Amino acid sequence: MATGTVQRRRDMALGSGAELFYDTPLEIVRGDGVYLYDRDGRRYVDMYNNVPCVGHANPVVVRAMAEQQATLNVHSRYLNEGVVTFAERLAGLHHDGIESVVFSCSGTEAVEVAIQMARIFTGKRGLICTDATYHGNSELVGSLTNVGHATKQTGEIRGFPFPERYRPLQEELSEEELCEAYLARVAVAIESLKTAGTGFAALIMCSIFANEGLPEIPSDFMSRVTDLVHREGGLVIADEVQSGYARTGLWWGYEKTQFQPDIVVTGKPMGNGLPLAATAARREVVDTFRAEMDYFNTCASTPLQAAVGMAVLDEIERMELLKNAAEVGARLAGELESRVDLHSVIGDVRGCGLFISVEMIKNDAIREPDAALANSLSESLKDKGFLVSYSGRFNNVLKIRPPLVFSHANADEFLGAFDECMDGMRA
Amino acid sequence: MATGTVQRRRDMALGSGAELFYDTPLEIVRGDGVYLYDRDGRRYVDMYNNVPCVGHANPVVVRAMAEQQATLNVHSRYLNEGVVTFAERLAGLHHDGIESVVFSCSGTEAVEVAIQMARIFTGKRGLICTDATYHGNSELVGSLTNVGHATKQTGEIRGFPFPERYRPLQEELSEEELCEAYLARVAVAIESLKTAGTGFAALIMCSIFANEGLPEIPSDFMSRVTDLVHREGGLVIADEVQSGYARTGLWWGYEKTQFQPDIVVTGKPMGNGLPLAATAARREVVDTFRAEMDYFNTCASTPLQAAVGMAVLDEIERMELLKNAAEVGARLAGELESRVDLHSVIGDVRGCGLFISVEMIKNDAIREPDAALANSLSESLKDKGFLVSYSGRFNNVLKIRPPLVFSHANADEFLGAFDECMDGMRA
Repeated sequence: MATGTVQRRRDMALGSGAELFYDTPLEIVRGDGVYLYDRDGRRYVDMYNNVPCVGHANPVVVRAMAEQQATLNVHSRYLNEGVVTFAERLAGLHHDGIESVVFSCSGTEAVEVAIQMARIFTGKRGLICTDATYHGNSELVGSLTNVGHATKQTGEIRGFPFPERYRPLQEELSEEELCEAYLARVAVAIESLKTAGTGFAALIMCSIFANEGLPEIPSDFMSRVTDLVHREGGLVIADEVQSGYARTGLWWGYEKTQFQPDIVVTGKPMGNGLPLAATAARREVVDTFRAEMDYFNTCASTPLQAAVGMAVLDEIERMELLKNAAEVGARLAGELESRVDLHSVIGDVRGCGLFISVEMIKNDAIREPDAALANSLSESLKDKGFLVSYSGRFNNVLKIRPPLVFSHANADEFLGAFDECMDGMRA
Repeated sequence: MATGTVQRRRDMALGSGAELFYDTPLEIVRGDGVYLYDRDGRRYVDMYNNVPCVGHANPVVVRAMAEQQATLNVHSRYLNEGVVTFAERLAGLHHDGIESVVFSCSGTEAVEVAIQMARIFTGKRGLICTDATYHGNSELVGSLTNVGHATKQTGEIRGFPFPERYRPLQEELSEEELCEAYLARVAVAIESLKTAGTGFAALIMCSIFANEGLPEIPSDFMSRVTDLVHREGGLVIADEVQSGYARTGLWWGYEKTQFQPDIVVTGKPMGNGLPLAATAARREVVDTFRAEMDYFNTCASTPLQAAVGMAVLDEIERMELLKNAAEVGARLAGELESRVDLHSVIGDVRGCGLFISVEMIKNDAIREPDAALANSLSESLKDKGFLVSYSGRFNNVLKIRPPLVFSHANADEFLGAFDECMDGMRA
C-alpha cells in the first residue's frame, strides 16, 4: 500500500493532526541496532530515538520479553521476586538517599507519582518548574508546560527562567552573579507560592534541561538551587526521563550536573520500547506515599516490566554503553564545536554524553534563533539518511540523541553528511 | 528464597504498604491459560484477572510480541501501517459514532485523554460520576474516587448515587419511578456545575458499574441518562476498561446496558498484560483534541502495541470468547443464584457474562453488608485453589472476573469449592 494511502487512513483512524515528523513523513518498517529502514528498504542512522537505548530489536531484550510473557505476566498484588530484584537493582544505581521505587507505565505517570509524593510528604501543593519545559501530558503534568516566568502568576504552579549562559537572564554579569540572578528568580517563585497560601511542595526539573535545549548551566546553580529548595521546605524532583540511563555517560544526569535530588523520575529508555517508568525516592517518602495513596497500576510493577528492565540494564553493562556514550558523545560534540567558527549560523554546540545540541542562529552578533534553519537542516539530514530533530525554547536547537549503541563510525558518517549540508547552504 | 524474605525485601524496595492480596500473600511464579502456580507448584484457578483475557502466557500473543519487538518498536511520529490497521479494527468493533482512536499506556491515561477531549469539545470543565467509582490514579482521574453524592458539592466534579435496585435510593418505588429518582439526582449534579460556573463537560461511568458492585440498573436508565447528558450539552464517557473486550459476552458493556456513549475508554485486557489503552470517539471529537493538544505518548501507538493488540483480538475471535463468556458466565451466575435461597448470607447474585457479583450480607431482612464475610470467603476459596476478590460500595461483594478462557469445567470445580465453603460456615 502506498505511503500516501497509509497517511490518509491514519488521519481517519488516529485523528487528523496526530503529529508526524518531516514534510514527507517516513514510513518505517524495520529497526536494527542504530538503524531504521523505510518501506523502500532505505537505511537511516537513528540519531533521535533515546527509547531503544540498547539498540532497535536488541535480541537480548526480545528474548527476555518473550520468555517472561510465556512464563508469567501478572499484576503486583501477588509477590514476585523478579519485580523486587529489579527495584533493588534500580535503587542500587542511585546515590544514597534513593532507596525505594514505584513503577508505572509512562513518564507522565511517573511524574504524577513524584508530584503526589512531594505534596503528601510536605503537606503543601505548590510546584515550580522552568519556563520552557515539558514533563508529560496528563492535566496536572501538562500544566507544567509553557508556564512562562512572569513574576506575577497564580494557581499552584510558578515558572522560573531556566539557567543558561548563551542567552543569559542579564548581560555582563560574572558567572557567579548570573547564578545568583537565576537563584533569585527561583526564590521569587517560591515566595509567590507561599504568599498565595498554596505553600511550596517541590521544584521539578530535568537534570540537564533537555527540552530547554541543553543549556550550559552557571556553575553551582544545581547544588545551590537544591539547597534553596530544602531551606524553603520543599523537595527536588529530578526528571531523568531523558537525562538518565547512561545518556550523559553517567547513569544519571544529576551526577553530570552535580546535585542530589529527593525524588527521581525515569521512563523512556527503561524498557527499550516496553512501556515502563519509575519514581524513586528515600524510603520514608515512598512509605508515606504508599500509606496515603493506596497506589495501584495494573500493568506496572509486573514480571514483564522487571524482566525487560533487567535485560536493558544487562545490555547497558555488557556493551559498556556508559563509556560509549561518554567517548563517542565527547568526540562528536568536539567535532561539531570545531565547526562553530566555520559557519556563522552555528551559534553554539553543547554536549552531554550522547545528547548534543547545535544552536542554529541567523546572525552571530545578536544570536537570533533560526528555527526554520534547524528544521531545514533536519530535513536535509533525513534525505542523506540521518534522523535528528530540533527543540529548545525557540525550536532552533538541533537535537542529537541517538540510541546508546551509536558508534564512532556512525559519528564519522554523520559529520560527512552534516558538512555537506552546511557547505550546500553556503553555496 | 523464602516467601517471607521476598516480602521483607519488597517492603524496602517498593515501599511498605504496597498492596498485596490475602493475609498470607501468594508468591506466583507461572501462569498458563486460566491457571496460576505458586512457588511450591500449587495450582490456582484464576477467577480474578481480567487482564490476561485470552489466557496467561497465551502463545499467539507471546509470538506476536516477540516477532514485533524483533522487527520494529518505535514511536508514532513515523508512519506505520500496523498501528493504523489496529486503530481501524478497534473502531470497527464499535457501533457507528466511534470512529477514531488515541492510544495510550494505561486506563488512567486513556481516561485523562477522554476528559481532555470532552472539555475541549464542549468548552466546559465540569464532570459527573457515581459516588462509588474508580477510574484511575492520576490527580485528575483519582479525584473521581470517593466524591460522595451530597447535593452540595464544590469544585469541578459532582457525584451522583449509582443506580441500583438492591439498595434503592428510595424504597417502595416502581422501577420507572426509581429510574426517575436517579435521573433527578444526575440532573441536580449537572445543574450544580452550571450554577457554579464551571459548566458541564461530561458524565463518566463504567458501562456496567463494575466497581459499584455490578448493580441491577433500573430499565432505561442508561439510555435516558445519555439523553439527559446530551440535552444539557455534555458528552457521555463510557469507561470500558473492565466492561469491554468481550467480558459481558458482547464486545462492549454499553451493548449490554444499551446506550450509545460519545467517548469510549478501553484498557486492561487489550494487551493481555502489555500496557495498552485507548480512547475512541467520533472523528470530530478526536480531530478537535488532536488540533488543540498536540498529544504525544512515547511508548503508545507503537508497532508493538498494535501487533499485540491485534493478536489479542485474533485470539478472542479464534477461541470464540464472546460466546464462551456469555454461556459459561450465564450458567455460573445461574448456579450461584440457585444458592441465594439456601444461604441467608448470600443476598444477591448479579451476572454480566464472565463478570459475576455475589452480595454477602449479615441478615437477609435488612441486607446489612458483610465485608468481613466476603473477605474470609475469598481467603477460604484461595486455600481451596480459587482466586476471587471483593468490591462494591461496602466491599462486601464477591467479585468473579476470570480470564475469558474460563470453562464450564472450571465453573464446576469452583461451585464444588464454593459449596464446601458455605457449608463449612454453617457447620
